[in-house]
Amino acid sequence: MGEYKAEIIAVGTELLLGQIANTNAQWLSQKLANQGISVYFHGVVGDNLERVKTAFQLASDRSDLIIVTGGLGPTDDDMTREAFQAITNNHLKEDEQTIDKIRGYFAKTKRKMTPNNRKQALVFENSLVLQNSTGMAPGMIVDFNGKKWVFLPGVPREMKTITTEHVIPYLKRTFLLTSVIESRMLRFIGIGESQLEHELKPLIDVQQNPTIAPLASEGEVAIRLTAKAESKEKANELIDKTELSVLEQVGNYFYGYDSTSIHECVFELLKSKKLTLAAAESLTGGGFSNEIVSLSGVSQVYMGSVVCYSVYSKQHLLGISPELIEVHGTISEQCAEAMAKNVCSKLNSSIGISFTGVAGPDDSEGKSAGTVFISVHGHGHKGEMNTEAFHFQGDRDTIRTRAIKKGFELLYRLLKDL
Amino acid sequence: MGEYKAEIIAVGTELLLGQIANTNAQWLSQKLANQGISVYFHGVVGDNLERVKTAFQLASDRSDLIIVTGGLGPTDDDMTREAFQAITNNHLKEDEQTIDKIRGYFAKTKRKMTPNNRKQALVFENSLVLQNSTGMAPGMIVDFNGKKWVFLPGVPREMKTITTEHVIPYLKRTFLLTSVIESRMLRFIGIGESQLEHELKPLIDVQQNPTIAPLASEGEVAIRLTAKAESKEKANELIDKTELSVLEQVGNYFYGYDSTSIHECVFELLKSKKLTLAAAESLTGGGFSNEIVSLSGVSQVYMGSVVCYSVYSKQHLLGISPELIEVHGTISEQCAEAMAKNVCSKLNSSIGISFTGVAGPDDSEGKSAGTVFISVHGHGHKGEMNTEAFHFQGDRDTIRTRAIKKGFELLYRLLKDL
Repeated sequence: MGEYKAEIIAVGTELLLGQIANTNAQWLSQKLANQGISVYFHGVVGDNLERVKTAFQLASDRSDLIIVTGGLGPTDDDMTREAFQAITNNHLKEDEQTIDKIRGYFAKTKRKMTPNNRKQALVFENSLVLQNSTGMAPGMIVDFNGKKWVFLPGVPREMKTITTEHVIPYLKRTFLLTSVIESRMLRFIGIGESQLEHELKPLIDVQQNPTIAPLASEGEVAIRLTAKAESKEKANELIDKTELSVLEQVGNYFYGYDSTSIHECVFELLKSKKLTLAAAESLTGGGFSNEIVSLSGVSQVYMGSVVCYSVYSKQHLLGISPELIEVHGTISEQCAEAMAKNVCSKLNSSIGISFTGVAGPDDSEGKSAGTVFISVHGHGHKGEMNTEAFHFQGDRDTIRTRAIKKGFELLYRLLKDL
Repeated sequence: MGEYKAEIIAVGTELLLGQIANTNAQWLSQKLANQGISVYFHGVVGDNLERVKTAFQLASDRSDLIIVTGGLGPTDDDMTREAFQAITNNHLKEDEQTIDKIRGYFAKTKRKMTPNNRKQALVFENSLVLQNSTGMAPGMIVDFNGKKWVFLPGVPREMKTITTEHVIPYLKRTFLLTSVIESRMLRFIGIGESQLEHELKPLIDVQQNPTIAPLASEGEVAIRLTAKAESKEKANELIDKTELSVLEQVGNYFYGYDSTSIHECVFELLKSKKLTLAAAESLTGGGFSNEIVSLSGVSQVYMGSVVCYSVYSKQHLLGISPELIEVHGTISEQCAEAMAKNVCSKLNSSIGISFTGVAGPDDSEGKSAGTVFISVHGHGHKGEMNTEAFHFQGDRDTIRTRAIKKGFELLYRLLKDL
């Protein structure tokens, strides 16, 4: 199965007009990857007979397993059957079970069955018919010139049900899939993508199995380790080994696996150490708070936040002294420290974090857009204070997003060592 | 331009593994459709030199405009430049402006520039370089064998910015597009999608040019009017006429055009009426505030927010009396009113809004998940108070999102009539 090439073709003009995204291809790719089947191409083609034929011909030439989604519906612009028929001379017949179902549906809803409704029951004579338990048109599997063709409806719910109920079991049965692909994501914060790759270059250069793929997202990076082996256990052993080598190099920046987020880690640490948190947010404007309250159960550890967007609110809600603001300004290390310290005492929390800075696009108080001070205050825990200055790049939203991510990073570092 | 064929190729193994959906192709297709350019194919190919070359060769044979997303990053598996170079013999050079930007970025962030960072500055010698205002790697437009090639980064934010700032203007200029497609979005709040469609059914049934397409999103609906004509003016005249008919039916729910958001409308109304706003957020946890501070210049009208996630913060920061909480609970009309009123006086704002409720998944204080009270208090402006109770459906994030959207709707209604 190592060299076995799969391809996914979606038929539908709505995709080419951008009315929907091709999430079917994403979902199917994940399922195939889990079975150790490599997908080499995705294609999208409109409801046009000639172009669908061309796409099928190309797939037939280069791929071993071709999965086609869409174009099986009742209307004239559903071209999948016609196109495949034209290139293979396969004949169509009505599937009895489907015809009965369509008749039953129209009887039940007291609507008149129109001739084109019968079209959905047409299947290839020599196909394996995959019954559709959530819709009308069945799926099909057809062998042609040594290639496997799988036809599925385009409606995501129907496509997913037929795949799970019929296609995956069929593929397992037919190919006696003996190799398994396992993936693990390692998440890092506080290191850039290129720096991470630089550190891991010796490992990446010799990667084979598992493969090592760096992925960047806003303010953090991840590495995906993907291993192929004869069993899940063997694949995970290979991944374990590579993970160790990776963490030897960059373990200092590692914070979690797979879909773990940095704010979940902070939440878990607060819970396990029985600490509470409060925030004072100026430029982040509630965005930090908004992230943390997305987690269910967070009210155990999260006291709240003061979004002190105005000087008035800094003075009257947080008790920052007018003198401090006069001397240092609101965008200063001193103001950040006072905000973190005061929000702790105002909200009676063990830890306080504060954000002040310039989201832009204009400068403020003589500081350029992107200037941000973040302060973390461990009230009652050594009473320690850590304030850092940053210069983030990007537009207003990017600067705020990066500041928030950095805030979680600073909290994570503090909590890990407490 | 009728027969002009466009194709979009995404380069990236992460798409073939199903880690992300190809939303770039969707977005680009919409933009091209708006310009009257037909997209005939989408393709996705992995980070493999031979396969990228094959995909490019095929596109070159069958399409007139080829847009490639992804594969321009700093790492070794970014193959787009190499593949195009191999089939066209185009030479690469460093783009001075980009190199300066990369150097500046590393200097500013005090990080070390690694050799692979330079790769992002490589552009084709005879290309039109499209500067990337939100990231590193620039886009490019290259003419080859009478075909136009557009190369864009795969990061959606960067791809979108470069397309909007450079690619669309270029296409307009270059092809002197003769039939013009104009689109206008009308935005509504306070009416459901099916209700809106019901009210507009007579209009929708006879639609031809413009077409009328209802679109639903979280907590609001929009209608897209799309007209085709020989000039922008003619298309807009057609749209104007249909818009009038639409607004005759449902104008009461209309709040703005195109990408206008309800929070922008609220911001503009606050500005023009010289009013200020403050928020007290319990279940929304800073999410309301986070939306409003995404707007530049909002500090003129926005005083801040108290994210009173704990009972302690409701009492100590907002001064809600223990008796009120004892008698009515924190999830009550009475608490919502006190929160809105008190945040007004604490932050010295003309208007206060408050949110309290159960985001779920568990019930709280005997109230079921989705129960939300929103109160708007017009301090000093007739001193009026409007509190409404809602039962939102959905998971934690959906309930919070709907509450926030509804809060903006209530503010909008209040401000419009002030």
